[in-house]
Amino acid sequence: MTICRTIEELRTVARGWRQEGLTVGFVPTMGYLHEGHLSLVDLAARNASRVVLSIYVNPTQFGANEDLSRYPRDFPRDEGLCRRRGVQALFTPDSAAMYAPDHSTWVTEEALTGTLCGRSRPEHFRGVTTVVTKLLNIVQPEIAVFGRKDAQQALVIQRLVRDLDLPVRIIVGPIVRDPDGLALSSRNLYLSADERTRALSISQALREAEDRYARGERDALALRRWVQDRVQAAGGRIDYVDCVCRSTLQPLDRIQGPALLAVAAFFGRTRLIDNAYLG
Amino acid sequence: MTICRTIEELRTVARGWRQEGLTVGFVPTMGYLHEGHLSLVDLAARNASRVVLSIYVNPTQFGANEDLSRYPRDFPRDEGLCRRRGVQALFTPDSAAMYAPDHSTWVTEEALTGTLCGRSRPEHFRGVTTVVTKLLNIVQPEIAVFGRKDAQQALVIQRLVRDLDLPVRIIVGPIVRDPDGLALSSRNLYLSADERTRALSISQALREAEDRYARGERDALALRRWVQDRVQAAGGRIDYVDCVCRSTLQPLDRIQGPALLAVAAFFGRTRLIDNAYLG
Repeated sequence: MTICRTIEELRTVARGWRQEGLTVGFVPTMGYLHEGHLSLVDLAARNASRVVLSIYVNPTQFGANEDLSRYPRDFPRDEGLCRRRGVQALFTPDSAAMYAPDHSTWVTEEALTGTLCGRSRPEHFRGVTTVVTKLLNIVQPEIAVFGRKDAQQALVIQRLVRDLDLPVRIIVGPIVRDPDGLALSSRNLYLSADERTRALSISQALREAEDRYARGERDALALRRWVQDRVQAAGGRIDYVDCVCRSTLQPLDRIQGPALLAVAAFFGRTRLIDNAYLG
Repeated sequence: MTICRTIEELRTVARGWRQEGLTVGFVPTMGYLHEGHLSLVDLAARNASRVVLSIYVNPTQFGANEDLSRYPRDFPRDEGLCRRRGVQALFTPDSAAMYAPDHSTWVTEEALTGTLCGRSRPEHFRGVTTVVTKLLNIVQPEIAVFGRKDAQQALVIQRLVRDLDLPVRIIVGPIVRDPDGLALSSRNLYLSADERTRALSISQALREAEDRYARGERDALALRRWVQDRVQAAGGRIDYVDCVCRSTLQPLDRIQGPALLAVAAFFGRTRLIDNAYLG
């Protein structure tokens, strides 16, 4: 595994592979890796001959009052995990290389980023779309893999790739959960034992909503209320519980096609997200 | 010369070249080609082994009251000019292919686009940066060539390429003029014989300002006034005459480093731009 700390190092490695006719799969992350990320590495490896994983805690996608400074970091651990999982290049640029002091160009998506996480994190997706565009231009992969836990992000990235004609295929990997149902997230580290137990209400409520949908419930408001009540009963502070069309992210009254039931809630200071596909 | 009417056709041609190890130079245009464009083709050919020229009148860079519908088009003539000048691929996508009905992703540059042409054409540069990003992602050239007549555009594109890490080198070609000094532009076609004669005041005034600069004038306002008075005396309606720093486009009082003296003025309904480098 090659560790590339600069854009030029990574470009050189990737260029060498391209000249050999090898394809590149790319997994962008913010590090503090867990099995969710590593499942995306497996997906990349099944779809390309070389895997690049980036670790970059992108400052422009954090709001002023968010957890940029305390976002968990453990590079030696991440490096070992990547090695064992068969990553061929680990890309770890620093912010000086990623953003010039007079950086002034932004990529924005305007139709899908006003709802869900975009409502409570107004600058977030501009940071995501900008850094993902940059990373894709640096790595120039044939495929890039994103996780479905960030369902809105995955949809926004697919739109970005289509609208800007980025020469890459996006693959979205399934949510990976702990055995008790909690969706894996680097931010789970922040949870106390008690908060973690109470946070299980999110995945439990989503599973119950899926059951109700399977038994014929099509009233989006009823499903939202169900989830909201369950999470609040466990002491969660709701950011949103929304039931939206899976391709436009527009809110639904009745579920008639593919829908996304998405939750963001705080347990203590920790904001967790999770979601279920309905239909 | 191959004519590619779809994105997929162009990608296939360019991919073939890349697999042969050939480099690609790219000249994006809105067609109605003149010697200014063709000089950029020559520059591309000197810096790459294959030249792609695109003709696409990009609707998103025209304002509501601008000349999108009457922008001049003459494909057979353009095709002949490209063939004779040694273009290997002519890319002529249509708007249905370039913008999906639910297109929602934009590239914006925020530091360099508020002045000069950006002031009177507020949406213009968002359209330019978005379509250039798209075209660069489609063609994936090693180099791309822009003309210095659109000095602000060239600077914005260089910033875009740096900020988004686009894997391309930008080359800026000099302004090409008619023997009497008028900067070549597809829009010169709109000018009546009388307007054309009066429009010569722009390049004449810029040349005189260059002379005054060469003789020691460093007062930006004096140079601006000189140009403004000359163009107005010829019946031109000034959009702007500005003297700005050549790297930041910020207005100058005194010229101490590389400066750009830039003009936009209407003769009749036709808006013309021109500029001079000072220092």
